[in-house]
Amino acid sequence: MIKINENYLKLNASYLFAEITKRTNEFIAANPDTKIIKLGLGDVTRGLPPACVKAFHMAVDELADDATFRGYGPYTGYEFLRTAIAEKEFQAFGANISADEVFVSDGSKPDTGNIQELFSTDAKVAVSDPVYPVYVDTNVMAGRSGSFKDGKYEGILYLDSTEENNYISDIPNEKVDLIYLCFPNNPTGATVTKEKLAQWVEYAQDSKALILFDAAYVAFIRDDSIPKSIFEIDGAKEVAIEFRSFSKTAGFTGTRCAYTVIPKSCTAYDSEGNKQSVHSLWSRRVTTKSNGVSYPVQRAAEAAFSEEGAGQIRELTSYYLKNASLIRDKISGLGYKVTGGENSPYLWIKTGTDSWEFFDLLLNKAAVVTTPGSGFGLCGEGYIRISAFNSYENVELAMQRITDILKK
Amino acid sequence: MIKINENYLKLNASYLFAEITKRTNEFIAANPDTKIIKLGLGDVTRGLPPACVKAFHMAVDELADDATFRGYGPYTGYEFLRTAIAEKEFQAFGANISADEVFVSDGSKPDTGNIQELFSTDAKVAVSDPVYPVYVDTNVMAGRSGSFKDGKYEGILYLDSTEENNYISDIPNEKVDLIYLCFPNNPTGATVTKEKLAQWVEYAQDSKALILFDAAYVAFIRDDSIPKSIFEIDGAKEVAIEFRSFSKTAGFTGTRCAYTVIPKSCTAYDSEGNKQSVHSLWSRRVTTKSNGVSYPVQRAAEAAFSEEGAGQIRELTSYYLKNASLIRDKISGLGYKVTGGENSPYLWIKTGTDSWEFFDLLLNKAAVVTTPGSGFGLCGEGYIRISAFNSYENVELAMQRITDILKK
Repeated sequence: MIKINENYLKLNASYLFAEITKRTNEFIAANPDTKIIKLGLGDVTRGLPPACVKAFHMAVDELADDATFRGYGPYTGYEFLRTAIAEKEFQAFGANISADEVFVSDGSKPDTGNIQELFSTDAKVAVSDPVYPVYVDTNVMAGRSGSFKDGKYEGILYLDSTEENNYISDIPNEKVDLIYLCFPNNPTGATVTKEKLAQWVEYAQDSKALILFDAAYVAFIRDDSIPKSIFEIDGAKEVAIEFRSFSKTAGFTGTRCAYTVIPKSCTAYDSEGNKQSVHSLWSRRVTTKSNGVSYPVQRAAEAAFSEEGAGQIRELTSYYLKNASLIRDKISGLGYKVTGGENSPYLWIKTGTDSWEFFDLLLNKAAVVTTPGSGFGLCGEGYIRISAFNSYENVELAMQRITDILKK
Repeated sequence: MIKINENYLKLNASYLFAEITKRTNEFIAANPDTKIIKLGLGDVTRGLPPACVKAFHMAVDELADDATFRGYGPYTGYEFLRTAIAEKEFQAFGANISADEVFVSDGSKPDTGNIQELFSTDAKVAVSDPVYPVYVDTNVMAGRSGSFKDGKYEGILYLDSTEENNYISDIPNEKVDLIYLCFPNNPTGATVTKEKLAQWVEYAQDSKALILFDAAYVAFIRDDSIPKSIFEIDGAKEVAIEFRSFSKTAGFTGTRCAYTVIPKSCTAYDSEGNKQSVHSLWSRRVTTKSNGVSYPVQRAAEAAFSEEGAGQIRELTSYYLKNASLIRDKISGLGYKVTGGENSPYLWIKTGTDSWEFFDLLLNKAAVVTTPGSGFGLCGEGYIRISAFNSYENVELAMQRITDILKK
């Protein structure tokens, strides 16, 4: 009899985005003539950079012709893309990462979701609260938790990220094995300092723990004192993996390309305490379970590192940051405490009320869709997340409407 | 201390393709002026169908423009593609599959590799021998085997596919939970009859087992009596999952698009024996670990079902089948027993000698690269696989050279 993986039954059905959609649709039905402005999703809205589009087309044409056709590519990504990434995204910032430490994939969500497969099912997992749900759910599915109870999974360590610690979790007092960090943070928009990140690296060294560092929003950093990569920190190459994506930089949410950096010195242990190469384990997983990323997509991604492409991406991210700045000014001006939005496309608003109540207020009175913070964890209660991904005109209109209903 | 998943350490390092590459490169170094002809890999060589190229370009242009830009798509694939698949690939052949039973993905290799996650780690797995290594390796990584010993993993049931049973494994006498079947088969090229497939479905029903049916090579079937889908068999929708790909049909090995069909009635069980929906479990996995497939790739795949596209794919697969037919005629004419190549791009040649010895003979005397059958399992010893993926001119030349060295 074929039995299921019963860990799946532990999963708490998350109704966050479904519930947002339901309430939004109800509002639209009742107010068919009102223009809704969506600042809820973390999805980009502007066209691909022209440099990427040009490279994308050229590569499609290569596939069209027998003489230039390419079939299966390298499992871990084409050399041209891995080299560009290593040079432009790491070496240029003082992080000594080589091309063969870069694994190209079709998304950071799959990578952050699948990486846990490499580790023992009894690994103790720590996440920030609020948290991107994928980190938690994929570990629940793999059997690294108990039941869902009072808003948390038993066996997972939730590290509070609150106003008190500037939304950067404190180093835990107990030992954990696998730590998920995300900076600039989703959902809070908080960034981390080099000093704080160095403390995390030191903790991982002392505990023989591994840090899974999600840097999907790195392209929004404008403050040069903020580390772009965990590999800017001494010693991180032994204790960290970093996830990056083209989704929020070059607008690839629908195009699909990302990469994961695993230094060859990154170490885990077997049950006898011998060192094992995490790089080798991931190589084995990728070669066994993947056939690489679409060739034209990899060429489009490569173009993001051309001078032309890099300029266009800077313009693209600056556009969203201008939106974020406007949101920040307007909401702060109304007397609300706002985090993020300076080096991040997300803003985390302390509402002073129940998350869903505030969500409803903005939806029903301003026709603006946001995301209730409580959907990201217990520490998100009393907050909403506003995303800067929309047109500037729509953001202006949304802020005008919100100002009208909230000004005191 | 972060400990690894020690099941990875059980994996027998497969040197098959690495060893082929090594021996090929040695030959090239020693014979720099000889033209090598590669009939080893299962990778297509001809350009994408023009209909797919056109749709691919149009979709890239959509992404280039703010007004038509698309970000994240549906996790399980766009409705336009799922509907086309359900109608053209299943309903048209009498298999009652609906669009929401189709899950679009970036490859059958990831899907056949990841599907086992849904099931209990103590599930008993059966595979054919010879076998596509992904089925086995992914179960080893998940802990469903013991050690590798004498060419097999302990705990996995290998079902011999030999000359005696026409390379179609016999139904096992013992109960298993998860059965991998692949028809037209890789590597043997064998096809299955409706009667035989119905026996497998009956076995799965009786044992409450699940069949994982890999139909990646279905587009090469020309004999209408051969089932294209397991869902043509009554009762299969309760006990089977089917994997399909655009790789070997529309030549998408470098473009990346595939799909997995899980009927809503497909059932597994929890430890109390209650029925659980495999469709729901896979939905949960896909929504948690994926953000879907590149939009332009899905549009290119959709075009494969247009009248124009379908004609081009027929032409493409017929081209390779013409190669296969030539190989079959020539090798048979030399007195070798040949399977496959009639409704499959693969030919399975009984060499009468050690696989590697025959490989070396063809390489060193005819400058033709093939694949030693022993790389696919114990039952592959004494065979080689020849692939029909190359130009007709190259196949003609290869056959001429092989004839010259082997004719008696």
